[in-house]
Amino acid sequence: MNSLAPVALTSAFAYLAAKTLRGKRREMEKPIANLSVDLPKSLKDTKYPAKLHNANVQNHLNEKDAAFLICGNHVEGVKYCDISKPFRQERYFYYLSGVDIPNSTILYLTSLKKLILFLPDVNSDDIIWSGMPMSIEEASKKFDVDEVHYLKEFNNIFRMYENDITKLYTTDLDNFKVNESVFKSLLDSKKIVAKDEKFFNSMDEARLIKDEYEIEILRYASKINDNCHLAVMSALPIELTEYQIQAEFEYHALRQGSRTLGYDPICCSGPACGTLHYVTNTEELKEKESVLIDSGCEWMNYTTDVTRCFPINGKFTKEHREIYEAVLDMQAQTMSLMKPGARWEDLHILSHKVLIKHLMNLGILRNEFTEDEIFESKVTCAFYPHGLGHLMGLDVHDVAGKPNYEDPNPYFAFLRLRRELKANMVVTNEPGCYFNEFLMKEFLEKYPERTKMVNFDVLKKYMYVGGVRIEDDILITKDGHENLTGITSDPDEIEKIVSKGLSKSRSNFHVVV
Amino acid sequence: MNSLAPVALTSAFAYLAAKTLRGKRREMEKPIANLSVDLPKSLKDTKYPAKLHNANVQNHLNEKDAAFLICGNHVEGVKYCDISKPFRQERYFYYLSGVDIPNSTILYLTSLKKLILFLPDVNSDDIIWSGMPMSIEEASKKFDVDEVHYLKEFNNIFRMYENDITKLYTTDLDNFKVNESVFKSLLDSKKIVAKDEKFFNSMDEARLIKDEYEIEILRYASKINDNCHLAVMSALPIELTEYQIQAEFEYHALRQGSRTLGYDPICCSGPACGTLHYVTNTEELKEKESVLIDSGCEWMNYTTDVTRCFPINGKFTKEHREIYEAVLDMQAQTMSLMKPGARWEDLHILSHKVLIKHLMNLGILRNEFTEDEIFESKVTCAFYPHGLGHLMGLDVHDVAGKPNYEDPNPYFAFLRLRRELKANMVVTNEPGCYFNEFLMKEFLEKYPERTKMVNFDVLKKYMYVGGVRIEDDILITKDGHENLTGITSDPDEIEKIVSKGLSKSRSNFHVVV
Repeated sequence: MNSLAPVALTSAFAYLAAKTLRGKRREMEKPIANLSVDLPKSLKDTKYPAKLHNANVQNHLNEKDAAFLICGNHVEGVKYCDISKPFRQERYFYYLSGVDIPNSTILYLTSLKKLILFLPDVNSDDIIWSGMPMSIEEASKKFDVDEVHYLKEFNNIFRMYENDITKLYTTDLDNFKVNESVFKSLLDSKKIVAKDEKFFNSMDEARLIKDEYEIEILRYASKINDNCHLAVMSALPIELTEYQIQAEFEYHALRQGSRTLGYDPICCSGPACGTLHYVTNTEELKEKESVLIDSGCEWMNYTTDVTRCFPINGKFTKEHREIYEAVLDMQAQTMSLMKPGARWEDLHILSHKVLIKHLMNLGILRNEFTEDEIFESKVTCAFYPHGLGHLMGLDVHDVAGKPNYEDPNPYFAFLRLRRELKANMVVTNEPGCYFNEFLMKEFLEKYPERTKMVNFDVLKKYMYVGGVRIEDDILITKDGHENLTGITSDPDEIEKIVSKGLSKSRSNFHVVV
Repeated sequence: MNSLAPVALTSAFAYLAAKTLRGKRREMEKPIANLSVDLPKSLKDTKYPAKLHNANVQNHLNEKDAAFLICGNHVEGVKYCDISKPFRQERYFYYLSGVDIPNSTILYLTSLKKLILFLPDVNSDDIIWSGMPMSIEEASKKFDVDEVHYLKEFNNIFRMYENDITKLYTTDLDNFKVNESVFKSLLDSKKIVAKDEKFFNSMDEARLIKDEYEIEILRYASKINDNCHLAVMSALPIELTEYQIQAEFEYHALRQGSRTLGYDPICCSGPACGTLHYVTNTEELKEKESVLIDSGCEWMNYTTDVTRCFPINGKFTKEHREIYEAVLDMQAQTMSLMKPGARWEDLHILSHKVLIKHLMNLGILRNEFTEDEIFESKVTCAFYPHGLGHLMGLDVHDVAGKPNYEDPNPYFAFLRLRRELKANMVVTNEPGCYFNEFLMKEFLEKYPERTKMVNFDVLKKYMYVGGVRIEDDILITKDGHENLTGITSDPDEIEKIVSKGLSKSRSNFHVVV
């Protein structure tokens, strides 16, 4: 069992604390038509720090005369037709190269601190149909590498360094097969070390701590994301279905240059807000009260992950607001403790303790039990089964969290982060509270000691809310944290944004189909 | 060499003929805010005709006591993280089932004309996190199948029919591996016939001829697509880059329920319009004259494929209009011959002959040569290297076209359809004319007999246009054809639509980020 952080419940609830913490009203006060994101200077004038990243990995690996050889992803075709699957660069490759060109390869020589990029050989048919690919010269300018060659030069180049390399670390051999003729002799070499735990751990530990460049990318992605959430909250007159909410979000992402989202967006309304990984996004909004949007824009392969909830008609119902404020308080109280040295398990447990207090106040959990008894029973897992948050970066659930999905303790089984916070980690803070019959079945039905703590007469009044989750992206700083997420979570501000949007008529929006 | 259809050039060029042919001004005259698509009754009240499709395949295969056993696609994870690749149902499976649920399996017994659907077994963890999957009862109601079971019942059910089955046809064995424990004994069976040419041919020939249900789906998808193209043409004030055009198109697709496009959308401007498979969509529109959008909405797994070109500032330049009218004439003249019995090669050749006439009139091809000499030289392949069109349906380049990509004749090497038209085939009619230095290099540089026919002084005045392609989706009917594409290609109407959009200020559009 984990030791617990002190529980310091504020007497004034949730959003007051959150207001103080956040104070980001910028977006709301701007007229919507003027929203814009300026590319920060730091990203214009510098390169993605690929060599630094290779050095980071080597620092963790600490192997003399090693080399890293990694092939990026290629474009995969769809079987039985001539279209392709969407290209997504392999994230370890991207971390070590900053290169998003399919079928590229990198070689890093740890002793020389030398990074060599191999671009795919140029196919003249491709030029005719698809235009010129990036040239050697362009790639040399764009990427933080010492040399660039075409892949056909690989064996000539490699031979120059071969004797000085004792081990040739790679992720796995799958992507080598695409260029089997080039890598044929190498693949038989005893120097190749693939699927090595130590190498993966070294890469994960390196990716755990973000550098300034990565943080700037995440800040920029967060601004794009803020605008998308704001647009969705503002466009209710033309959003009649969940997939129209998704369309609104994705439209603004792509307009701002975010070509993909970091994960399938969750756009749900009413009771479906209680389905944690809801991605069908098919239902109509009419006759519903609540919306939950969990969606994050990706930019330069780094993703954000933000959840906002709002009332469809511009005014929270009593029950929706009560749950919203409970969740906001869970977030505010854990947020105030986010700094280097804090144990994530402690913050997670704190969020459950705050939830207990709120659910007791609302009468959903019975007052005849003490907070400690309720905590020991783990009954809140029926309302809040997931973790407080996770690492975020190149992947939405970023590497190095050290979760234990086999943990028999339901408080921790779904917690994706099981370590102490350090400066320059980026985490989500995303408590939630859900009313979902399947969750109740799973976490209550078999446990009479939990069931007896729930007042089902009160509970049933809340079922229509579905669920609330409030999720922000947090950079751990030297002394505390910085909230990268700017879109407001203040319920009063959200009501104003939604209401302002609703006051427009449908015909004031561009195209309504 | 193919025999040629008579070339009947109209004296009045291109768009007049097209106007008569098309006459679809509906969308333009409607105010944009009222655009809508009503689901046709036929699609509300009937099921996807899966059993008919199985019977169609059996009619071509003509094997007694055969069965078809096919596993659909499953959701594939992305390596080294916990997100998934977008799900796309395998098209043969969909044709034979109408089922879009990942990891489903069908068994069709040809002798009994019986179709059995196996849904994936229900995982209680999935229900907690993702909600209830479709039940047996719901699936029985929704799909055109005789029985529905969970996959765990497969061996019990199969055993009942096993002795009556002589051959068990499937596409390939890849998807069986996902449920290896279920199919283990079956996979060793000598009755299994995988990757069989005759079976694939039978499926392809069945898919070639669309039934009424499929045609209704394509009609509906076409209406969605019309609205998307119209929206893009109408929103220039807020489209400053090619990816913002893409955002506009995709937004309207998803708003109308089209969750995916049939292929990566091509949104290009200026000289990039000459790059045939341009999908980077990154450039700014400023200081460009022309836009080319090749994008098709998918609906119920059937896709459309439509290209429109328009002038960015609302008025075609002289050269852009000249090329536009040439291409429209190529389309109009081939269109008028589209009916059962027409040979696609003949129509394709006709489109080249029309192009020759226009390029001679413009002075790009020299008048000192005869049309026949120019045709024999194949010089127009440098301006129009692709085919007139292709089959369309579940895949954007649908099966059964019988192309010959090894054909040494450049007129035909890229022609995806090499057969006679029949009623209920759906094809694209998409002639084009491009000004692309790589195309010229490929098709002119090595051929002095072609090079001498080009007046490069005239040609260079057209380079900025990049290219024009006009693409409509055509259903071949008993007596002729029906153009499924409703968005206008009339250059005067297009100018009006673009100009009307431009007359609005940026702030009249919903959100500008």
